[in-house]
Order: sequence, then structure tokens, then C-alpha cells
Amino acid sequence: MDPSDSNSAAGGKTQNVSVPPVEGVAGGGTSYGWVDGGLRGTNIGAGVIDPTKVHSDDLLHVWSMPSTANVSQQEAPRPLEKVNLLAARNERESFQIALRPKVSWATSGIAGSVQIQCTDLCSSSGDRLVVGQSITLRRVVPILGVPDALVPIDPLSPQISIQPGETAAVWVSVNVPCGQPPGLYEGEIFITAVKTELDSRTESLPKSEKCRLYRELRSCLDLTGPRDYSSPEEMVQRLTSASTVLRRVLDNPALQDCQENNGFGDMMDEDVINNISVRLKLSLTVWDFTLPVTPSLPAVFGISETVIEDRFCLEHGTEGWYSALDHHFRWLLQYRISPFFCRWGDSMRILAYTCPWPADHPKANEYYSDPRLAAYAVPYAPILSCTDAAKNSLRREVEILKSKPHWSKAYFYLWDEPLNVEQYDMICNISNELRSYAPDVRILTTYYCGPSGSELAPSTFEAFAKVPNVLRPHTQIFCTSEWVLGTREDLVKDIVAELRPDLGEEWWTYVCMGPSDPQPNWHLGMRGTQHRAVMWRVWKEGGTGFLYWGSNCYEKAMIPSAEICFRRGLPPGDGVLFYPGEVFSSSHEPVASTRLERILSGMQDIEYLKLYSSRYGREEGLALIEKTGMYLGPDRYTLDHGPVDVMRGEVYRTCRS
Amino acid sequence: MDPSDSNSAAGGKTQNVSVPPVEGVAGGGTSYGWVDGGLRGTNIGAGVIDPTKVHSDDLLHVWSMPSTANVSQQEAPRPLEKVNLLAARNERESFQIALRPKVSWATSGIAGSVQIQCTDLCSSSGDRLVVGQSITLRRVVPILGVPDALVPIDPLSPQISIQPGETAAVWVSVNVPCGQPPGLYEGEIFITAVKTELDSRTESLPKSEKCRLYRELRSCLDLTGPRDYSSPEEMVQRLTSASTVLRRVLDNPALQDCQENNGFGDMMDEDVINNISVRLKLSLTVWDFTLPVTPSLPAVFGISETVIEDRFCLEHGTEGWYSALDHHFRWLLQYRISPFFCRWGDSMRILAYTCPWPADHPKANEYYSDPRLAAYAVPYAPILSCTDAAKNSLRREVEILKSKPHWSKAYFYLWDEPLNVEQYDMICNISNELRSYAPDVRILTTYYCGPSGSELAPSTFEAFAKVPNVLRPHTQIFCTSEWVLGTREDLVKDIVAELRPDLGEEWWTYVCMGPSDPQPNWHLGMRGTQHRAVMWRVWKEGGTGFLYWGSNCYEKAMIPSAEICFRRGLPPGDGVLFYPGEVFSSSHEPVASTRLERILSGMQDIEYLKLYSSRYGREEGLALIEKTGMYLGPDRYTLDHGPVDVMRGEVYRTCRS
Repeated sequence: MDPSDSNSAAGGKTQNVSVPPVEGVAGGGTSYGWVDGGLRGTNIGAGVIDPTKVHSDDLLHVWSMPSTANVSQQEAPRPLEKVNLLAARNERESFQIALRPKVSWATSGIAGSVQIQCTDLCSSSGDRLVVGQSITLRRVVPILGVPDALVPIDPLSPQISIQPGETAAVWVSVNVPCGQPPGLYEGEIFITAVKTELDSRTESLPKSEKCRLYRELRSCLDLTGPRDYSSPEEMVQRLTSASTVLRRVLDNPALQDCQENNGFGDMMDEDVINNISVRLKLSLTVWDFTLPVTPSLPAVFGISETVIEDRFCLEHGTEGWYSALDHHFRWLLQYRISPFFCRWGDSMRILAYTCPWPADHPKANEYYSDPRLAAYAVPYAPILSCTDAAKNSLRREVEILKSKPHWSKAYFYLWDEPLNVEQYDMICNISNELRSYAPDVRILTTYYCGPSGSELAPSTFEAFAKVPNVLRPHTQIFCTSEWVLGTREDLVKDIVAELRPDLGEEWWTYVCMGPSDPQPNWHLGMRGTQHRAVMWRVWKEGGTGFLYWGSNCYEKAMIPSAEICFRRGLPPGDGVLFYPGEVFSSSHEPVASTRLERILSGMQDIEYLKLYSSRYGREEGLALIEKTGMYLGPDRYTLDHGPVDVMRGEVYRTCRS
Repeated sequence: MDPSDSNSAAGGKTQNVSVPPVEGVAGGGTSYGWVDGGLRGTNIGAGVIDPTKVHSDDLLHVWSMPSTANVSQQEAPRPLEKVNLLAARNERESFQIALRPKVSWATSGIAGSVQIQCTDLCSSSGDRLVVGQSITLRRVVPILGVPDALVPIDPLSPQISIQPGETAAVWVSVNVPCGQPPGLYEGEIFITAVKTELDSRTESLPKSEKCRLYRELRSCLDLTGPRDYSSPEEMVQRLTSASTVLRRVLDNPALQDCQENNGFGDMMDEDVINNISVRLKLSLTVWDFTLPVTPSLPAVFGISETVIEDRFCLEHGTEGWYSALDHHFRWLLQYRISPFFCRWGDSMRILAYTCPWPADHPKANEYYSDPRLAAYAVPYAPILSCTDAAKNSLRREVEILKSKPHWSKAYFYLWDEPLNVEQYDMICNISNELRSYAPDVRILTTYYCGPSGSELAPSTFEAFAKVPNVLRPHTQIFCTSEWVLGTREDLVKDIVAELRPDLGEEWWTYVCMGPSDPQPNWHLGMRGTQHRAVMWRVWKEGGTGFLYWGSNCYEKAMIPSAEICFRRGLPPGDGVLFYPGEVFSSSHEPVASTRLERILSGMQDIEYLKLYSSRYGREEGLALIEKTGMYLGPDRYTLDHGPVDVMRGEVYRTCRS
């Protein structure tokens, strides 16, 4: 029996006694009605929701979050407030827009589609930061359930889908060009619930219908088409038949919506957007400081050539191979990072090189001279195949490079974490060879302990601290793991005490598997400030450079769009700072992680701190990060974003001219 | 400089010395290549992937999971194996298909679309279980990150989207009708990576084009249409002009793909599917046992009428209101559940009624006589508004019902968890009234402690166990919280010892906020066997009925598709066993949770155990659940599915005729 059948007999308001009584006060059940969604609701009702006819504020929550927030799918809505940003020239500043459906308005399994349109940011003097160029939107996509991948949103169709019961996030970045005039720039972001493409698809003609129509029209053309009509009767017949076919075509239900409007029903009127969109006001203060094009702190990051070869099916040394490496180099360079390509040999032997072309190639000069590159690795070719040809090639490389102005940026990275005297000897032998070509060569060695087989137990801090004594003059860049320090910042002075700056010796650091939580690192699942604090730590400890082993070191795959797997035995996210674009769309552009963006932010913070210290001294700089609560030590730094903005605001306030 | 520019000079295989050397053995970086995706890969290559040209096994992982598994987005792939199911007649048996992309083949932000097609299940004697009727597919959608909502997949377009790096699950249910001949039924499920609708959308005609075409054809009809042609010249002119218009229309680039095929290019050929699909073999043994249509154990579950009124914007007592309640009643009845509608008054006073129509209405008899309904609540109307009219109405209800054969299923549920002597007195007064109308009336009272204000401290177990002494003869169904027992199964005998079965007294139980993990309950985030074990516990403890307070008790909302929020102060999922369909699609059908399906499975398990016990005695039944490891106690039951199938298999083996 159909439920509606019974209504004439029993339904309707005429009945009274038999209807179970209504209780005025009660809502039923525990704490019902506590969370009142605050829906305007007046014009929504119980039927299908047309998002073009309802204010988007009735359909979704919109609020902003700082770039250090990990906006999870369960993130709870907050009030929408104006976003105020501060940025220097040549700086990127980002924030996030969080979106969560209040209701579902799509009919196809998602809660709905949302359009995010940003105006240009304009200053009162008419200067602009243009959407699509200086302002970009990316969708934050979870990796292993953690918001991490930043997938570009097509500027021509800036829409994302949101799911029932899930918070989504959009990463908004403003890139301030070097030449941007300082000033206050203002703009707005319009967030609008829209019909989904699948829902409006019903308005388009599916292929089968289209082709049926095509066949009908062909038959119609056969009727009208021949030029030799035998008689007026035949012509009347043909015209009548053609009319019949045309009427049948025009009566097709799929075409009926064309009668009603001009066919531009899909386009949303600007007035409509103004009336129904949620509007997020955005203001950016561009201040009179330009981040140095060359980062003050060289941060050298590995890119695995092996991974590129495998995933993109490229044979070593082919055109496509060069093109892929070049693409990766240019892309990563945007992040104030000095990339090096790398390939591991056995026993952690490593071939590291910044430029895939030889030193006499025009591309080499282009690479090495790029002012954004703070340091470059020169390939020690014999490391993997110690032939005469390789040795000669190496000597030629050094001969060419050592005469160039950029030679001061050059370093050799020969071995990853040597562990025993035998490996130390190898480094010394290579060093002797290299120093015979160029006495001022710089060799970088990473390590986290002393060598086994020497007089000191390798696992003691003393053996570790004394490594410079063993490797001098065969290493100039002593690059130690932050893991060794743990939370003992005071040990820094013991490391530095062993170095001879007069001989050009430097102390750099690195992170990889360690240190682990709660210390700063770039693992997936750590807090956003924990990612950003890696660079705060570097600045506070006073290292003069930084190394990271790998930025694309996902598990082996032979297809560009293959699922990204992290390598077994590594903490998730370790060695992976960006993803292949092909996994997320048809784009070949790498997809940055939120962690990479926070590395960039940390690198930018260093420039702020350096500026401040250059004015007021390093002690005042150290006091600044402490008094703002931003960074006090490897296990004492802010978990929230507030102090970051306070630090930056203080630098702006005290250093603007 | 474009990277490809440089290739003529430096790229290509002709170069050798300058190309960094290749190391044969090394893969680079820690543990690279350990997880080999096992991609066939030979025919995929580095370009855009056309899923119609590649075996789906190269594109996605497919494996099956039991119905008690919570298949999370991070679930790791397993080998694909044949699925073997066992089911009685009138039973529903379910399993899950897990899907995870190996690569992305869509270009629009998802990894790809997957089509899931099931054949009918056929026996060798030609009997069938038909897809869409007896076999249903539902998408498992996370709620608060936990796989829970089961959203129907359109049988006409059985596709789902899968996301990069995420495991999706499809819930497959086979419903065996009462009259199904026993036997072995076999079938297959074809899982095929397909082009996404958005990707193939380029083949459909967009609305603007469609409407342009419409206007052209209208103009063409104006040319051919009028019947009074003044001259043959005019007719030639008209035919020529019409031909011109038609040719222009047919030359539209958007129609060109219609020339090439018959217009059925979207439909996938059966041979193609056979060649490229992943095939999951499914076999179902239907055995010669029919689950009783009336559940052996009455399980009465509340449906909040308040929530229905609010969310679906229905005024109490209107046609739409009756229709909505009727819809909910019929829907929940499928789950071997006896629904009651409820509305709370103050002090946990409750109006509970199974049928919204009065006893003299034809619908009432239809409801109460339904053999699937094991128990029904009769509304005690005066509970909320104690008028003479309400009292008279109540008396009339009882007068009518007590003469019916279904009266033995009737009960009154007056108060939820009375706490003090005053509330006990209210129950007694109502009981006196009701017993004056029908001496054999059954009153159900829920409680978890003794009354305060009596001689025993209410929080002692003794006070709790002695409640029957206080409420006799004013309660016949003593319904106690499982929370009171904790893991002390031995306390059951103390509760039961206080009851007088000779007076028709019964012991029922309930769960709500408690007990909590690790005991069985239906909260979100508990294990699947933990959900199913609620009914195992009931059966082992020997209660003769079960009550659950609410199945749709989400937070207040005034729009059908409003986001589902759980109520503040309750564990997630508590009081919510299904969701409004409108949240997930345009469907008005409620969306079951996995937890509701597991309740059904538990109810079905009870019938298996009852059958077994009827043959071999209850002691053997208890031994069966213990020796299979399925259920030993409230904190000792299987975490994995295996023992469930062992128990069911053993009942099948020993009880088939």
C-alpha cells in the first residue's frame, strides 16, 4: 500500500484526537537542538536546492586559516573574518580558506561544487597584484589522511567539490614581485555555491542524443539537398517531410530548455555573484623590504634522478631526461632552494650534481649563475665509475668552473654519512685529487657520529664533535644531523668550537628520519609550525647552510600517474616534498606539499630575522623570537600561528624605513 | 630558455662523457624499490592513460573484505580472491569490495572512475538472484573519517570515483528471498576502470551549442514549414536555404564525432569489458533454512518524530508527516527491527508509538499485523497532555487492540530510565490506569539503577537488581542497560533471579552511551565485530528482547540535506543508525550505516544460534560460540571475521536437513 494512499482517510489537519499530541517544550532525546546550525533557512525549504537562488552563506561554512594550520576533514567551522597579510617584495605569503557544507545542494554524491573567485589586489595608487599571476589558488589534498598536496585550481574554472561532513581547504598564495610598489593592497574573494558540472550536464546533450539528432538532420538534408527537383509536387512533398523531421527534432525533450532562454543560463551574472556569494575580504601590506634574490642561507635539496627516470620512463641522457631534470630544477628553485640531483651508489656513495649539463655547455652557466641559486654541487663523476674518461671529465669541469665568479657557490658532496675509517679514507683520497685541481675546492660531508675504527668510540658526542680534526682539510662544509643535538642546543658551541672558520670551514645541518616529534622536521602529520620551525632552529643555532637529502623520493613506480607510496622504513613524508602532477590531474607540473610551502616560509623568516639582526644585532634577533614565543628551542616553539605574525609584524614595524 | 632548446646541443644519446654516469645496481636513497607495485606496465607508458585500452588490473587494486571490516581510506591492498558466501532464505549477507588506484587515469582531480557490474547469481538448475533486486551495491562513505554511510549506487550507472592514495569500498548485499530454492549460486562482478563523465563530457553537446543549434533548426523549420508556397521558385529557394542551414549545422565541429560511429561509443562493448575488467568471482550457498519472518528476539528501536518534523519541515499531523513516518517505519522494518516513534517530554517522560494512525484505522491493523513486527508500542497519549480527550482516546485504543491477535506484541513504554520514587509512582499510577483497561497489559521500563529515595542506595547493584520488587506489577518488561553488567556476565543470574516469568515478566537489555570500548556497542569507530557482537551478547546473556533509544537522532536541522551533526555529549554514532538520503544525493531513501547492517547480521546470527540450540540444546549453542572463538564475553570476542563464518558454517553443516 502506498503511503500516500492513506492520506485521504487519515491524513490532513482535520484529524485531532487520533494524532499523537505535540509537546511544546520538548525536542526529544539528549541535548537535541544544542548546536543550532544558524541556517537562515527562510528561503531554502524542503525541496531541491538551487544554489543560484540561495545565499551561499546558507549552504556552506567559509572561514580562513593560517598557512601553518593542518586543516583536516574534521576541522570545525569558525567565524569568517577579514584576512590581513604582510609581505615583503619577492616574498610569498599564503593562507587557507576552509569550506564545509551546511547542506548538500548537488544531486550526484557530493555535497556541492564551490566557485572561488578572487579579485586582483589593488592599492589606492592603482598598483595591482593580478589573479592567476601573483595570486594562486590550490586545493589541499590529503595524503595518508593528512592535508598535504597542493593541487592547482584551474584559474579558468576555479571550482572545487566539497563532500558531506568534510571540511575542504583552498591554499591561497600571494607572490609579491620584486618591483611591486609598497602599499596597502585590497581585494576580495567570492565563494559561491554553484551547480555541479554533473548536475548541469543534464542541460547538455549527451552523445547518443547528439548523434541521433545528427542522423535526423542528415536525412533532412537528403530531403532538401538535391538540386534537381522533378516537380512542384515533389518539392511540396520534400518540404513537408523536412518539416516533419525538423519538428520531431525540435520536440526532443532534451531541447526544450532552449525555448525558455537565450542559452546562456549557465553563465552566472556578476550581480548574482555579488548577491549570493560569501565574501572574504583580503588586505595585504606590501612593505619596503625586498627579500634578497639569493637566499642568505644556502639550502641544498636533493632530487632523485633515479625516481625521475623510473616514473617518467626516461632513459638516462636522452632529450626527455634533460628536459625533465631541467623542469624539476627550475620548479624547485622557486622555493629559495638550491637543488642538486642525486643518485646513490653502494655504501652511501652519492653522485650529487646541480646541473645535468657539462661546465662548458651554455646551460651550465645559466644554472650556476642564476642569482636564486645559493650553492651548487659539482658532479664527482668517478664516484660511480672510476674510469680515466670520468677522471678527465672531472678535471675539465673543475678547470672551467674554478675560473668563474660563481665558483664560490660550488661544493662537492661525495658521501652520505660516512661511518668508518675506510670510508673516511675514500673521502680523503678524493679530496686530495680535487685539491690538486683547485686548492680552494669545498667538500661537504654529512655525518651524525664519529668514524668507527678510530681511537674514540664512534657513538660518543666527543667522537662526533672531533670529526673536523679527522676530515681536515678534506672537508670544508661539516654538515651534521640535528638529531645528534636532540634538545641540547648548548652542544652547538662544542661543535662550532672544533671548526676553523679561518680555513673556510662552515657548519651546516640537516634533518632526515630524525629528529622526530616534538622536534622540528618535515614529516607528514607534524604540526605546521613544526615544519616551519626547522628553519627557525637553523637560524637560532647559527648554522650557515642546510641540506636535505631528497624531495621526490617516493617509492619506485614506472608510470607518471602511479600512486605515491612512501618508502618502507622511512617516516611518512620523509624525502618527499612534492608530488608528480600526473597523479592529480593531466598537468605535468609538480604538486607542492604544504611542507614545502612551510619550508619556503621558514626561509623567508630567516631573511626577516637577518634584516632585524643587521639593524639591532643578533642578540636582539634571538630575543625577538623568544619574546614573541615563536621559537625558544627544539622542543619549545609555538604551536599556533599567532607568534609568527607577531614576529614578522615586529620586524616590519621596526625595520621599515 | 626553454629546456627543449638545449637538446640539439647537449641532449640525445650521442653524448657520453658529459652525461653523469649511470650506476647499474643502485636505485638511490633508502630502500628504494622495495615495494614494487607489480604493474604490468608494458602497455601503459608515460602518456595519457586511456582506460578502455588497458587492463583494469594495471590501473587499480581490487580485493574483497568482510562486512565486519571497517575499510579505511588507508586500507592496504590484499590479493584478490574468490568470495564465498553462505546464506539462509530470508537472509541478507554482505561483503565489501575495496578499490585503490595504482595510477590515476582521470584528468579532473580524481584518480579515476570505476564501473562495478554484477551478473545475476545463477544456480545450475537455472534459479537466479537478480542484480538490482536481490543484489545491491552501495558506496561506503566516511562519517567523521570512519567508513559508515552506505549510499546506493545507481544500478543504471554503477560507477564510483576513486581518489589518489585512497582506498574506497563498495558494500555488496545479497538478499535471499523466502522462496529461493537452495543451491549453489554463482556469478561474477566486473570491476572496470572507465573514463570519467567529465572526461567524456567533451563528447556531449554543451547547452550553449545545443541552443544555438535549436535556433538554427527553428529558422530552418520556418523555411520549410508554411504550407502555402506561392511558386516553384520560392520552393526551390526555400529548399536551398534550408539545405544551407542544415549543412552549416552538420558541419559544427561538435557533431563531427557522430560521423565516425553509430553514436553508441559511450557504451562499452561486452567483449571489451570481458577483456579489460578485473573479475571477482562470487559464489553463494543458499541453504535449506528460512529465517523466521518474525524475529525470534524483539528488537525495538526508536525513531525521533521531532527530528523528522524538523529536518523535513513537516507539520505534525499533516499528510506529509504521516507519509514520512510511514516511509521510515517500512524502511527500518527491513532490518528485523520493530520501530517505535518517539518524542521526549520533560524528566525523560517519553511518548512511544509504533503506528501514527489510531487503532481503528486500517493502517493500524496493517502495521500491527505485519509478521515482521515482533513488538509494538501503544501510545500512552496522556503522557504529554493529560486531558480527558487524551484519556478517552487511550481507553478506546486499548479496547480495540486488546481484542486483536497481535495484542500479545503490544507494550507501553512510558518513561526512559526513571531515577526516583516520584517517577516510579508516576509509572505505577499509569500502570493502574492501563491495567483497568486491560489486565494483561505489558509495560516496558528501562533503567540502569535503583530508585533514589528508597531504602537501598540507588547506585548499588543490589538496588538495581531489586527494581522488579518495586515495579511489580507495574512493569512486565524489565529493560536494563548492558552498561550495568560491565564485563560481569555472572551478574545476569542475579538480575534474572528477581524476575517472575510466571507473571509474564521478561528481561530485556539496551545499550546507549554505555557500555563503551572494548564492550560491544554501536558507536562510530568501534570494530565491525564489536557492532555485531551486541546481539551475540544478548543471545548469550539470555535476554528475551532488546531496546535502542534512537536511530535517527542527529542534531537539529531544518533542511533535509543539512549536514549531519551528532548530538553534543553523545559518543559519535550513538542514536544514529541511518542518515537522510538527501545529504548524499537527490534520493529520499534513508541511507543505512554499516552499523545498522551489522545489527541486522547480529539479528540473523541469533536465528542461526536459535536453530542450532533447538537441535542440540542451549548449552551446545553456548559451546559453539565459545569454541569458534566468536564470542566468549563482553570483552572477549573475535576482532576478525573468520570465526563468524566458522560459526555460521558449523550451523549449516550440522543443521541442514
